[in-house]
Amino acid sequence: MSETLTATPAAGAVSAVLSALSFDEYGLVAAIAQQHDTGEVLMLAWMNREAIEATLRTGRVHYWSRARQKLWRKGEESGQVQRLVELRVDCDGDAVLLLVDQLGVACHTGRRSCFFRAARGSELVTIAEPLVTPGELYGDKG
Amino acid sequence: MSETLTATPAAGAVSAVLSALSFDEYGLVAAIAQQHDTGEVLMLAWMNREAIEATLRTGRVHYWSRARQKLWRKGEESGQVQRLVELRVDCDGDAVLLLVDQLGVACHTGRRSCFFRAARGSELVTIAEPLVTPGELYGDKG
Repeated sequence: MSETLTATPAAGAVSAVLSALSFDEYGLVAAIAQQHDTGEVLMLAWMNREAIEATLRTGRVHYWSRARQKLWRKGEESGQVQRLVELRVDCDGDAVLLLVDQLGVACHTGRRSCFFRAARGSELVTIAEPLVTPGELYGDKG
Repeated sequence: MSETLTATPAAGAVSAVLSALSFDEYGLVAAIAQQHDTGEVLMLAWMNREAIEATLRTGRVHYWSRARQKLWRKGEESGQVQRLVELRVDCDGDAVLLLVDQLGVACHTGRRSCFFRAARGSELVTIAEPLVTPGELYGDKG
């Protein structure tokens, strides 16, 4: 959390953002990551107060891992980091939109976006293939 | 729910989609609505099994209103409907991405997108103004 890779243009907005957010009973808000230039929606994850603060202060996106119950600096294992371009808050403060610059792939399956299955006809069709293997992303940690 | 405005190209995919989803303890998944051609992220809301089914069958987006605890056909009061272009499911099945064609505005404040506040400098700055007033959208119902 003390690492500052890229100064964010909104490091001073932590208290303004936190004041605008309505965290749920688990202390979380939903966070959508969107590639800032192409508009591609990459993933949906969750942020707590600490993740919001770390993201704004360091310029590198942090989430709260519900599975692991810990702060998760995106890319900390895989190297597939997200640089924050802009954080936006929705009308009722229970979701944020993160405009990011995604290095490599966002999905743990090795695909660029987590939304790689589309309802077409009577099926759910895989519309994107992995660009790297999970083994390449996570090595022995699988 | 029996209304069919536009045939969706995936009306037959209801069971495939439901099988791929992991609903939370409230029976919900997060749903991101994105304008299909511009890439603009319009809103985040929630869907239960009934909302998924109604959306795929009618081609018109339905959500579950957590505030009102009822199925909510987007635009039923405001007229600002969302036509479904494609529904996508994420890697772990707890979120869907709805590519939509939004008529008018998505936000109840009258703005095109609910994400109209951006962290810039030390503030949360309003970056979009209402295109219509809530009064125009909802009339006497406020």
